[in-house]
Amino acid sequence: MIKLTKETFSQFSKIPRLNLINSCMGYKSANLIATKSADGISNVAVFSSVTHLGSDPALLGFILRPNTIPRDTYTNLKETGFLSVNAISENMISAAHQTSASYPATISEFEMTDLEEEYLDDFEIPFVKGSPVRLLCRYVNEYPIVENNTIHIIASIEAIYYDAILDREDKWLQLDKVNVVAINGLDGYALPQLLKRFEYARVNQEVKEKL
Amino acid sequence: MIKLTKETFSQFSKIPRLNLINSCMGYKSANLIATKSADGISNVAVFSSVTHLGSDPALLGFILRPNTIPRDTYTNLKETGFLSVNAISENMISAAHQTSASYPATISEFEMTDLEEEYLDDFEIPFVKGSPVRLLCRYVNEYPIVENNTIHIIASIEAIYYDAILDREDKWLQLDKVNVVAINGLDGYALPQLLKRFEYARVNQEVKEKL
Repeated sequence: MIKLTKETFSQFSKIPRLNLINSCMGYKSANLIATKSADGISNVAVFSSVTHLGSDPALLGFILRPNTIPRDTYTNLKETGFLSVNAISENMISAAHQTSASYPATISEFEMTDLEEEYLDDFEIPFVKGSPVRLLCRYVNEYPIVENNTIHIIASIEAIYYDAILDREDKWLQLDKVNVVAINGLDGYALPQLLKRFEYARVNQEVKEKL
Repeated sequence: MIKLTKETFSQFSKIPRLNLINSCMGYKSANLIATKSADGISNVAVFSSVTHLGSDPALLGFILRPNTIPRDTYTNLKETGFLSVNAISENMISAAHQTSASYPATISEFEMTDLEEEYLDDFEIPFVKGSPVRLLCRYVNEYPIVENNTIHIIASIEAIYYDAILDREDKWLQLDKVNVVAINGLDGYALPQLLKRFEYARVNQEVKEKL
């Protein structure tokens, strides 16, 4: 095992420090968050911090970087109160990564990348066409993280759209059936395949595979 | 596409609601968090909510469920101030899932599962033997999420241990080289394989694969 202490890695130059700290806690969810400004300009950006918060009510959280530079996603979701969260599948990774370029707020990433916007049920918030799992979410709250000047955004899930191939009696969405990816670090895109699903774990009982 | 609105899925019975909401926002990180009580009893539990918060300082966050039932991880990390975060690899998934059974606080999950504890550098906090990426972390702060009575724990990364096979000049840890898994929903364990890594995205430039 190689050991790096905080004293060591905090002295790294920026790129290796970002690489190490972004990859050391495992795979991250891969989603495109789309919003619309009050002026009607669409925005879409790749996020790797979308995390389950709770199921009843259905809530998710994600992290926004400091507001010292323009952050269209934040501005838009405060203006309209809504956002969409769109799973990234294998065929979208290059376009998804391109959304991380610093486009000005007056330009929609949908114009500048191969991603296409799509409107569902006449609602004014854009979704990403072709994404196999899409969530319509409402802004609920935000918690400033004082330790590093980030913001933890809390959103409620108002509607879920998913590829019909994923429908099951028990409502578990088996993500590898629609080639959803995961993110490794800042810039690595990986394709997971299901190994096993387990039954609820109980004391004094061997863990059982769910068949 | 199948559409489920909040009005529909909030009326689901518990299992399908948990399955749907836990799987609809993509893959989750797969880690074992290990702690030690003031009495010296080790605890280890599977977590799917560990998320990158920032690299300078190096911080992560994770979500703890309501404190209405005993939560050994929380009690221990408040007592000692330290925890370890251990990546779950393919050969550990069954034992990792077994840690989610409701063992009493007086029993260590290391005794009841195939996971083995290991101590590094004479530090009193247990690590999970065989885990290919392990973080020693210090409790920093907590943010109560009032919307659903969960707690967002903030921890700093004090040291990183990783398999020597992962060492690279740019310090990116390529997780598929050591078979780190990702979690799909509550109980699905998936093995990712790297598709591509991209260069930093720039306006007016096609996204380039990092070779």
